[in-house]
Amino acid sequence: MKKTNVKILSKPKLKAPTLIEGLPGMGYVGKLAAEHLLEEFHAKKFAELCSPYFPHHVVVEANGTLRMLKNEFYWARADGKEVIILVGDVQPISSEGHYEVVKSILDVVEKFNVKQLFTLGGYATGKYSRAKPRVVGAGDPELLKKFRKRGVEVEEGGGPIIGAAGLILGLGKLRGMRGVCLLGETHGIMVDHRAAQAVLEVLVGVLGIKVDMSALERRGRETERTLDRIRKEMNLRTNKERRRDEEEAWYIG
Amino acid sequence: MKKTNVKILSKPKLKAPTLIEGLPGMGYVGKLAAEHLLEEFHAKKFAELCSPYFPHHVVVEANGTLRMLKNEFYWARADGKEVIILVGDVQPISSEGHYEVVKSILDVVEKFNVKQLFTLGGYATGKYSRAKPRVVGAGDPELLKKFRKRGVEVEEGGGPIIGAAGLILGLGKLRGMRGVCLLGETHGIMVDHRAAQAVLEVLVGVLGIKVDMSALERRGRETERTLDRIRKEMNLRTNKERRRDEEEAWYIG
Amino acid sequence: MKKTNVKILSKPKLKAPTLIEGLPGMGYVGKLAAEHLLEEFHAKKFAELCSPYFPHHVVVEANGTLRMLKNEFYWARADGKEVIILVGDVQPISSEGHYEVVKSILDVVEKFNVKQLFTLGGYATGKYSRAKPRVVGAGDPELLKKFRKRGVEVEEGGGPIIGAAGLILGLGKLRGMRGVCLLGETHGIMVDHRAAQAVLEVLVGVLGIKVDMSALERRGRETERTLDRIRKEMNLRTNKERRRDEEEAWYIG
Amino acid sequence: MKKTNVKILSKPKLKAPTLIEGLPGMGYVGKLAAEHLLEEFHAKKFAELCSPYFPHHVVVEANGTLRMLKNEFYWARADGKEVIILVGDVQPISSEGHYEVVKSILDVVEKFNVKQLFTLGGYATGKYSRAKPRVVGAGDPELLKKFRKRGVEVEEGGGPIIGAAGLILGLGKLRGMRGVCLLGETHGIMVDHRAAQAVLEVLVGVLGIKVDMSALERRGRETERTLDRIRKEMNLRTNKERRRDEEEAWYIG
Repeated sequence: MKKTNVKILSKPKLKAPTLIEGLPGMGYVGKLAAEHLLEEFHAKKFAELCSPYFPHHVVVEANGTLRMLKNEFYWARADGKEVIILVGDVQPISSEGHYEVVKSILDVVEKFNVKQLFTLGGYATGKYSRAKPRVVGAGDPELLKKFRKRGVEVEEGGGPIIGAAGLILGLGKLRGMRGVCLLGETHGIMVDHRAAQAVLEVLVGVLGIKVDMSALERRGRETERTLDRIRKEMNLRTNKERRRDEEEAWYIG
Repeated sequence: MKKTNVKILSKPKLKAPTLIEGLPGMGYVGKLAAEHLLEEFHAKKFAELCSPYFPHHVVVEANGTLRMLKNEFYWARADGKEVIILVGDVQPISSEGHYEVVKSILDVVEKFNVKQLFTLGGYATGKYSRAKPRVVGAGDPELLKKFRKRGVEVEEGGGPIIGAAGLILGLGKLRGMRGVCLLGETHGIMVDHRAAQAVLEVLVGVLGIKVDMSALERRGRETERTLDRIRKEMNLRTNKERRRDEEEAWYIG
Repeated sequence: MKKTNVKILSKPKLKAPTLIEGLPGMGYVGKLAAEHLLEEFHAKKFAELCSPYFPHHVVVEANGTLRMLKNEFYWARADGKEVIILVGDVQPISSEGHYEVVKSILDVVEKFNVKQLFTLGGYATGKYSRAKPRVVGAGDPELLKKFRKRGVEVEEGGGPIIGAAGLILGLGKLRGMRGVCLLGETHGIMVDHRAAQAVLEVLVGVLGIKVDMSALERRGRETERTLDRIRKEMNLRTNKERRRDEEEAWYIG
Repeated sequence: MKKTNVKILSKPKLKAPTLIEGLPGMGYVGKLAAEHLLEEFHAKKFAELCSPYFPHHVVVEANGTLRMLKNEFYWARADGKEVIILVGDVQPISSEGHYEVVKSILDVVEKFNVKQLFTLGGYATGKYSRAKPRVVGAGDPELLKKFRKRGVEVEEGGGPIIGAAGLILGLGKLRGMRGVCLLGETHGIMVDHRAAQAVLEVLVGVLGIKVDMSALERRGRETERTLDRIRKEMNLRTNKERRRDEEEAWYIG
């Protein structure tokens, strides 16, 4: 019945790996964080997922070759811990597509005996701040305790969590998997390496894995420069609008 | 073929219960009414329904845990009457989804020998009134007679009834179930406890069950305060617009 | 696989009936024409069709009862000719739904040995005219000849025919059924009995059936009064706009 | 499970034909190019594809007959080369529909042992130019080399390729078929024979087939006249806007 297609490329022997999900979403926070782990862990791809619920286009790569849109499963061992990392180009378009793709994702990780799920993403504030981005968490109460100790906040009666980051945990729970979603505070209009680093720091802290953050930090400084530029442009625009308002007020009055 | 999933948690022994539906809709009238019954009857949950036709997000609860969006079936006995109460977070997005979910709902209640259906909701008037909200009804002519005696009005050639409140009755009728839809008059831009109480009063009257309304009454007073505030704001805005119109008229003329 | 449901209520013995389709569409032209035939022929309902591709609401009838949205099949004999008349509340929403419902319709009429299909509708001109509405036709070349003799025009390279009126003929042709679509010229913003009568006159002429048109004529005069009122309102508005344009021209200039 | 329907009209004996796809898209570039080949090669139709994922209307042809929307497969031999040419009225509406229809297309060509795929289209620049349209390519690196020699450019990190032109290659690759997508530069607001010719010239060059381009050239001159007219209109409008801006600046200032 399922239209989504998973291709298993190899069968890594894993005892009880943790799933870390970082598909594209707000500020690309989850995607940046998960891709940083891929690099640092020298993770190996073992499965690919394609779906007719993805948009109907193909990706042209740097050398002019093209390929289907996909989600990819990688595995790695680091500091004695096993992880499966899920990254990808896109999330489905329709609600129905989201449910089917997440079920297919859980079918894969269930085969590799995954019991613990961490999903990563951003939440938009629409504000610019130089302060370290906050990270909020939601999910299994026992796991959440560990994150609270590292500064993760829990929003009482928070809003919904949209897409894979939420559904993987919601549908995973029905299969007996426990997990937490970590969302880094981000402006919302740009790719945000700083938020990705903030999310990643608490995640690897709880996992007990050491990760070199220097690549993210370097790119995080780009984020700050972008933030500064936007802030200035916004100020300019606000000033202009104020001036125009004054003129109009004078004119109409 | 169905994508909607129902999980039966327990099998209450019921002879011929009545279904009372109160899913989210206009003014949350049906939801408020049904949830009030849940409380007053100390009803017990016996089934849950999830569907890929629901929106693709999860709910974060007060303590930071998260869960799938769902519809829930409760049962209770009160004054010798048996009821199944259907409540939930959402209704499906697409038309196709609505039909499938309602079929799944009817599959559940058919197993428990339900022959009588009452669906609750609101209808928007866009007006503020301190008068007791009217309740209009549609459905089985024999059942409607009982409601008419309690002041429920029947609109000759009324408009369509959208979503679960209508489809449960329409598709239920094809399975030999008789029912009535009760819609409480509501403004349409806010959660309306007063309309919920009005609907509930006629329902429990016909069912011959006594229900304490004090909790709804208390919250109904909140509704009135909100109505008063909106009414004032609207007046202010109307006055402003009138003034602006006069200025412009003077200006252009 | 099909989600659309057909309920056969009785099995009339028909040798080779002609299908006449009049589902809701532009100006309700087809629906009005087909419903007029129902009345005049004292046709009998023999099948009903419901579909999850229809909108997710139910119809409240004059006496407060409610029912599912549906399409209905009637049959009749008149002047020695057999006809099946298809009428209904709605057409599906999605493209996919249209294809499925039309296939279900053809499955029904194929069982009754239908070989000839006439689909009725309107085409919008956005203009008001007191002249007799034109009727354009498309479809089987042999059948079209008969309609041309009665004044039906064929548009060379005409636009697409949308919905059931087109798909019944297109998909019917693949099953060896021959047919013609007749579209009456209509303004597009109101229910148009005059266009319905124009379409019906050529249809019954070709079928060789006599039909009393007085009921349609009477209601056609309502259409004319509506047209006159709209024409006046439009003139008023146009004059107002012209005046405003002149003022603004003077003002900016 | 598939809803898309393919009708094989005849089974041409082909050893290893090349698929050339030209379905409607930006500037109708692919469609014009493929239809030109149909004409010049006197290609024969051998299969038709209909789908409920196509829009729900039928086509009225010049003589008033009507038919379903479809995609069509033709075959031809030219200069000792075998080709299958895919043309059609439309592409599907939804993403899911695109995936299903492309799978059905590949099912057909796989049966005829196709190993090589060329998909044709346009990419919009929003600019008018009298220069020869550029052609960009993406796909199999070995095949791309041959096109580069004939002036085809490869965009480093180019955007996505939308619809059949992309998905045929992406899904074909998963079945071991190699291919290239050729996109001719076009303005985007009109049918563009010049871009079609540019794309076709590199294609037939690589295929080693001679094709008379005079029909395309003739119609290409129409494209140029249209371009000239648009360019003039745009200039006029720009001048008007500039004048109005000046007036307003003077007025507000």
